[in-house]
Amino acid sequence: MASVLEIIPLGGIGEFGMNCMAVRYGDEMLILDAGMGFPEESAYGVDVSIPNFAFLDEHRDAITAIVLTHGHEDHLGALPYLLKRFNVPVYCSHFTAGLAESKLEEHDLMGDVLLHRVEPRDVVDIGVFSVEFIRVSHSLVDCFSLGIKTPVGTIIHTGDYKVDETPVIGEPIDLRSFRRYGQDGVLALLSDSTNATVPGRTPSERAVIPAFEEIFSEARGRIIVATFASSIHRLQIVLDVAQQFNRHVCVLGRSMHKNVEVAERLGYLDIPDGLLVSLNDAKLMNDREIVFLVTGSQGESRAALSQMATQSYKGLMVEEGDTVVLSARIIPGNERLISRMIGFIYKRGANIIEEKRRLVHVSGHASQEDIRIMTEAVRPKFVVPVHGEYRMLFRHKEFVKNHLGYAEENIILIENGDVLELDGERAMVVDKREIGRTFIDESGFEEIDSETVRERKQLAYEGTVTVVVTIDEESGELQDEPRIVARGVRGLGTNGFPNPAGTSRAGGDSIMADAKRVVTASITGASRQTLADETLLKEHVRVELKRFIQKQTGARPVILPIIVQV
Amino acid sequence: MASVLEIIPLGGIGEFGMNCMAVRYGDEMLILDAGMGFPEESAYGVDVSIPNFAFLDEHRDAITAIVLTHGHEDHLGALPYLLKRFNVPVYCSHFTAGLAESKLEEHDLMGDVLLHRVEPRDVVDIGVFSVEFIRVSHSLVDCFSLGIKTPVGTIIHTGDYKVDETPVIGEPIDLRSFRRYGQDGVLALLSDSTNATVPGRTPSERAVIPAFEEIFSEARGRIIVATFASSIHRLQIVLDVAQQFNRHVCVLGRSMHKNVEVAERLGYLDIPDGLLVSLNDAKLMNDREIVFLVTGSQGESRAALSQMATQSYKGLMVEEGDTVVLSARIIPGNERLISRMIGFIYKRGANIIEEKRRLVHVSGHASQEDIRIMTEAVRPKFVVPVHGEYRMLFRHKEFVKNHLGYAEENIILIENGDVLELDGERAMVVDKREIGRTFIDESGFEEIDSETVRERKQLAYEGTVTVVVTIDEESGELQDEPRIVARGVRGLGTNGFPNPAGTSRAGGDSIMADAKRVVTASITGASRQTLADETLLKEHVRVELKRFIQKQTGARPVILPIIVQV
Repeated sequence: MASVLEIIPLGGIGEFGMNCMAVRYGDEMLILDAGMGFPEESAYGVDVSIPNFAFLDEHRDAITAIVLTHGHEDHLGALPYLLKRFNVPVYCSHFTAGLAESKLEEHDLMGDVLLHRVEPRDVVDIGVFSVEFIRVSHSLVDCFSLGIKTPVGTIIHTGDYKVDETPVIGEPIDLRSFRRYGQDGVLALLSDSTNATVPGRTPSERAVIPAFEEIFSEARGRIIVATFASSIHRLQIVLDVAQQFNRHVCVLGRSMHKNVEVAERLGYLDIPDGLLVSLNDAKLMNDREIVFLVTGSQGESRAALSQMATQSYKGLMVEEGDTVVLSARIIPGNERLISRMIGFIYKRGANIIEEKRRLVHVSGHASQEDIRIMTEAVRPKFVVPVHGEYRMLFRHKEFVKNHLGYAEENIILIENGDVLELDGERAMVVDKREIGRTFIDESGFEEIDSETVRERKQLAYEGTVTVVVTIDEESGELQDEPRIVARGVRGLGTNGFPNPAGTSRAGGDSIMADAKRVVTASITGASRQTLADETLLKEHVRVELKRFIQKQTGARPVILPIIVQV
Repeated sequence: MASVLEIIPLGGIGEFGMNCMAVRYGDEMLILDAGMGFPEESAYGVDVSIPNFAFLDEHRDAITAIVLTHGHEDHLGALPYLLKRFNVPVYCSHFTAGLAESKLEEHDLMGDVLLHRVEPRDVVDIGVFSVEFIRVSHSLVDCFSLGIKTPVGTIIHTGDYKVDETPVIGEPIDLRSFRRYGQDGVLALLSDSTNATVPGRTPSERAVIPAFEEIFSEARGRIIVATFASSIHRLQIVLDVAQQFNRHVCVLGRSMHKNVEVAERLGYLDIPDGLLVSLNDAKLMNDREIVFLVTGSQGESRAALSQMATQSYKGLMVEEGDTVVLSARIIPGNERLISRMIGFIYKRGANIIEEKRRLVHVSGHASQEDIRIMTEAVRPKFVVPVHGEYRMLFRHKEFVKNHLGYAEENIILIENGDVLELDGERAMVVDKREIGRTFIDESGFEEIDSETVRERKQLAYEGTVTVVVTIDEESGELQDEPRIVARGVRGLGTNGFPNPAGTSRAGGDSIMADAKRVVTASITGASRQTLADETLLKEHVRVELKRFIQKQTGARPVILPIIVQV
């Protein structure tokens, strides 16, 4: 076996989310992060995706450990699914472990899994690899970059990061360690590209405090703050400012409760006694004494804020006089949902404060000048932009090339499934694997294969027609008139004819009556050979009916023929 | 009949697009604009929606005319569908008529329709109403506001507008006429809210010229400009700058061809001889001699730009060295499509220039200071924000209240279906009608009822299971084992069992085998009464099978039972 290192991204390149990467040397393989994705297929009953693990299956005996940079869903969400297949030790921070544990409990995996909690600057030897955990700042707490020593050289994987010297919670980014690596020599820097299109520095988590102080001093009624449950710094700020302005805080929403509980238990959130109140107590309080800290900043219809805006969330509604703060960015794809929710909040007579109008949100990701600081500290031979859509990866490359003086051939753009080979001197993509994704049903636990999703798309686009033909087993003669049931097909059952009771929409509809004649004719006109072969006969009926429906209505539904032989 | 005016929006309030409004006095009704909407249901085979015309049907004898403010799809797209039902005269500008004609031709409606072309300041008497067409500036050309004199007072409907004193094509906005109305007294101003959240003035159409000149002077290869085909000012600018930099222009995309043709024929576009070249000629030219003016700025997969970025559009691909200019805003909901397309363009090695990086796009809608100019010119008694999502309508109200000194009760927020009654003194919503929308199939011509779309959503979300039960007509005994066909159902047909050929995914699958036993048991256990009544029997089978599938897999597919009696 050649002494080369292979880096194979299984997700997170050319897309937002689903960050997961394999790092292989010889017969040993580490998995870095195990993230969920947020696919566009949500109309088809799937909320999230995970990398398809077929590639890892091929290497199942090589996998030695899973190493997590931090606890966001796009880095952690696929962990239970991964562990069900490959039960290897997991290395991560205390807080990440806290979130992982509650996830593993939901999947009934606790007790079977070895979770190693590490501290900043801990170095863990895993076979040929040695992994150092380097503190970075991010919107979450207890986040790491990974310094991975391999036989061909050192790799730094930034995870998600920004350069924040004054985080609200915990230590600032450990630039000293990054510089130490830079002095010792780094072969490749795998670096977060999420904000590579954004000029300047990303503000510190503290930057939002003044806006919150203003909002709290102006508010004459209740305050409702919606943010990501995982934005622990933000939660601490809201708690602090609430305390300062003599308001109690009521936490609403499942994930908000979970994150607050884990963060407080592990000592990341500092919550004064008596600050938090239950919903029942909150309802009894004066409007000026309460802050609701809620989920639903993305307009998710089942989350607390949307429900408070449209109907009622546990008896609570947005009211006139409320101040609603959306302390979050808009995740691409959620624009319409969020805009609609804002409309409902306005309709309820509340005031609403968005990121665009006041500085109530800062990003957790490195902007261009943060990228400069990181890259100049680490001084890698190769820069490999990761985490982001292609436009971000390309802009990352452009920035490193135009502003940091890197040569084109030292900036490596890879895609999911690319096998990037490094031998200490050269870096090149030597193979391309088909990775794909596995969809997860919205119940959150069931895998859905992409064939099922493909079928749902077909059904969604043009509907379906089932045709049942009953023939005599011996003679092949039709025993009854064909039954036809349509669902979601335009022009069938809706052409001004009454829609009969029951599941069939056919009766009374002249197109359906004609369709039955077409099917009958296709049977009576079929050859003996066709009649004798169910597969042939089904295809024959399908083609004839498809042609007829398309000609009559322009529609191309999924046609399901069923032959009953009596 | 009371002498009151009724204003009933049929679309465009609380949503982007589908602008359409009825204005009624006694037994006469005008329809203002007939726009398409862009529904979120595109996953279900529908691209556009139109207002549901049931309300208009009730008043069909009252409808005297359709008046169009301008030719954008969100004001014009529903015209053919409206005219098919209510063939009344249409009043609009020459350019709007040009676009309307090509639309009516596609629908085979030409010859049956009376299109009246009007000039700025034309006044048309339509029964009790008198309508003046007032020139406004917008991204399209030949756009009007409407000054409508009614027995209870004057209404101004702005249509889409911005205050542009230096448009590229045609006269500037006719503020003098608006001021004249203001002096004579205006009862209500129905006013565009699209950009009511944006402070300041909207720049003139000319504002993008410097950026285009820079881009053209820097480009070393081909230039590809994507914009809305209807942005006629923008097209003229690209043509002018191309001429200035000695490049020829090749127009690509169906709607771009149509708009250029109509605009040139009617004298709105000034195209020097020889500037336009065919695709074949363009392919033979030097890279520095050509500009492609293309559709697809929203990342639409079938439009020219996406195809050039991903595969090939008539033999043309984006290449290294190309400069691609996205001269358009992102319509909410298209973010992911556009971002993906940009990624593909980067992957092809081209440079890409977006609105965020250079001033290559300006809006056609009034920002807050334009709203100030319009409102102060017209000085209406009532301001009625229209055209926009609720957040925009509310911000419009907030601006007029806080910055223009209007009292709360003189700013009327309405919703689709509200019947706003004006008697000259008071304005109030006296009734609320259910309007709804009609979906249009993507072929562009076929209406799809919302029941069909609802069915498609069900199918899309969990798939479908058809079960066929064959029973003896006399005895009610099962004649054959039940047939079960599943499509798009997770856990059926994919549990590690081979997927048999043909349409059924059942064979070999233990859940399916058990499901058949459940159906068989449900038949043998059914009462005589149930067996004798097909509707009862179907429901019985449906419920039993549904319960079993849900218990076994957690899935809740649409279940279609079919009973065959032999």
